[in-house]
Amino acid sequence: MTDRFDGHHLIADLTGGKRLDDTAHIERCLVDAATAAGATLLQVRLHSFGSGMGVTGVAMLAESHISIHTWPEYGTACIDIFLCGRKHDLDAGLATIAELLGAQIARQTLLVRAYRD
Amino acid sequence: MTDRFDGHHLIADLTGGKRLDDTAHIERCLVDAATAAGATLLQVRLHSFGSGMGVTGVAMLAESHISIHTWPEYGTACIDIFLCGRKHDLDAGLATIAELLGAQIARQTLLVRAYRD
Repeated sequence: MTDRFDGHHLIADLTGGKRLDDTAHIERCLVDAATAAGATLLQVRLHSFGSGMGVTGVAMLAESHISIHTWPEYGTACIDIFLCGRKHDLDAGLATIAELLGAQIARQTLLVRAYRD
Repeated sequence: MTDRFDGHHLIADLTGGKRLDDTAHIERCLVDAATAAGATLLQVRLHSFGSGMGVTGVAMLAESHISIHTWPEYGTACIDIFLCGRKHDLDAGLATIAELLGAQIARQTLLVRAYRD
């Protein structure tokens, strides 16, 4: 039940978030989001921009990736969840991150990705 | 000259690509794309799905990230280039990857990201 359009990419900007400078918490966001989405985690990479500063995190998945970039000074985070396959729940992944950060989803866009051309 | 909408996220699907199973070449795509875009590279992470199989690569940047996922069996690659700041040339980054892979840009979408709410 697959066709050439079976990748989905959810792009979302969050506001009102907390613990956005907490690297271990950002890692938890990525790991729990992958689990919630039903994806298979390969590795997580994190980069802190310094004490009290933002964090970049990427979860590399068997089904593509989840990334997060945070700006504690604004309470914001930019997320993208790209999963190939129809069985995954991107919304659950995003909701998990928003909940863990105590954030609101200010805007989101769902793109269909084609990789079977 | 910045405002709350100063992140840009370019999403593109490529077709007709070559060397899509070549991990070192995918790494070069990411490094050269970051340079072409005028971004500052922090680290590159790569995952090969096996001999002749696809590669996932992520370049973590001071300005966010570039990711690539490849499917050699289809000749396709899915790219996203997310850069915060108005000075960067996302199109040049994408063109660099397409040229290095000998691929065509089948479709692309540019999203504006808000992180200064």
